[in-house]
Amino acid sequence: MKIGIIGVGLIGGSIALKLKQKKAVDFIYGIDNNTDNLDEALSLKIIDEKADFEFGIKNSDLIIIAIPVDAARKILPNVLDIIDSSQTVMDVGSTKAGIVNSVKDHPNRSRFVAFHPMWGTENHGPKSAVAESFAGKAGVICDREDSAADALQLVQNIVENLDMHLIYMNAEAHDLHTAYISHISHITSYALANTVLEKEKEEETIFQLASSGFSSTVRLAKSHPEMWVPIFKQNKENVLDVLNEHISQLRKFKSALEKENFEYLAELIENANKIRGILDK
Amino acid sequence: MKIGIIGVGLIGGSIALKLKQKKAVDFIYGIDNNTDNLDEALSLKIIDEKADFEFGIKNSDLIIIAIPVDAARKILPNVLDIIDSSQTVMDVGSTKAGIVNSVKDHPNRSRFVAFHPMWGTENHGPKSAVAESFAGKAGVICDREDSAADALQLVQNIVENLDMHLIYMNAEAHDLHTAYISHISHITSYALANTVLEKEKEEETIFQLASSGFSSTVRLAKSHPEMWVPIFKQNKENVLDVLNEHISQLRKFKSALEKENFEYLAELIENANKIRGILDK
Repeated sequence: MKIGIIGVGLIGGSIALKLKQKKAVDFIYGIDNNTDNLDEALSLKIIDEKADFEFGIKNSDLIIIAIPVDAARKILPNVLDIIDSSQTVMDVGSTKAGIVNSVKDHPNRSRFVAFHPMWGTENHGPKSAVAESFAGKAGVICDREDSAADALQLVQNIVENLDMHLIYMNAEAHDLHTAYISHISHITSYALANTVLEKEKEEETIFQLASSGFSSTVRLAKSHPEMWVPIFKQNKENVLDVLNEHISQLRKFKSALEKENFEYLAELIENANKIRGILDK
Repeated sequence: MKIGIIGVGLIGGSIALKLKQKKAVDFIYGIDNNTDNLDEALSLKIIDEKADFEFGIKNSDLIIIAIPVDAARKILPNVLDIIDSSQTVMDVGSTKAGIVNSVKDHPNRSRFVAFHPMWGTENHGPKSAVAESFAGKAGVICDREDSAADALQLVQNIVENLDMHLIYMNAEAHDLHTAYISHISHITSYALANTVLEKEKEEETIFQLASSGFSSTVRLAKSHPEMWVPIFKQNKENVLDVLNEHISQLRKFKSALEKENFEYLAELIENANKIRGILDK
């Protein structure tokens, strides 16, 4: 099987490495506007050959779109325009309603499978790619009823080769749940970094005192705007909804402290502790 | 050297294990109101003997107070009451102004060294103790000028044996900086957990979708109220100050999204990205 990967960054690169390791693929074309990334991916043996857009797509059995969600949404109709019914297209974007809507009336819609691997790091570029990224994490396929059976089967095989556990969801539900589980974490982490940078003018002190607790809470704040602005843009309503709830939860802590209502503060914390039972199942 | 540890939980237990590993101590008395913890610490060989309050203190060269900060503040004057000038007392609490103020006029004040190891996990109890906890982290000694030279030297040796890098700070500055670097992270993490628990009624979905990003941001939300309510209580003013700033930083994200001002959103994220340069120095 030949694969064409559009966007040979962290996610595209990690998929490529894993599929090669599993010998699930014979040849990988890399397609990327960023020629530095392409050269790097080639020298890291993430891809076998650089290809231009049309050649790479026409010569691949499976095309994986692994670029920021706004660009992915824009490019998907063009990709579907030039494939035939033996080819399959999948994406890996963190928002799904926008991209499935962008092709809902496309004659080749059934060749597309909307996919989201629940994995990422704050790093980017082909050099951050690692084969073992996805193992044990959730891989979500959205609106499977809109994909052809053979296209769906191919993507299911890919997900299996990534050692992910497969979940099916409709695109709207996906965007709602990821707002809770992923997008809001990034906003709190960005806002926490900005809080500390605003209030703590002594950088040296941050560096010296930063504990593993701080580092883990603020880790996501290293994530780049090129990826995250489009996600927040595409999932604006859900993210705002969760963000409003989050601000109101923070106000409860503020009010408990201001009023020195330490029993209520303990209740808020005990409630938060319930996340342990869910995460450590 | 004989050590008496008041509170054989995560921190007290981890210090004991590390000092034993380094052969920096001959004998460890465990003092704890929680007899289950004492028995567990004994069976895990964290301590050599259970002791009651007065016996344990009178027979130790160094007494380490490792209980929640409100209890530590209450107990410290009693400990200083019964020691003589050959003994040293240190604490490990996350807030420092309250405890140093509680003994500022005590005749044995100079036998006390106020210490805070910048390490902890969301776990608790002796079974969570691990010897390698502190290595490479910051150990802060506060108001060193108020401690006797030999007491200070003894605690410095302990910090060295824990493989921590030593920082000196006054207690007020410590409480201000830890509000930024540690206490606010816990509040955002608790509030994030409560947000998700409030909005995401499908626990199974949280469990299935939770990515490593979510888990790392929400990890601190597992921390227990017994430890954290007293910290927020003792450091109320600083924590409120940082919390207000944090809420206002979140409102900037909210406003950027509401107004669809994606350039401003990108600026906010780029600013947050600067934390990378500081954390990865």
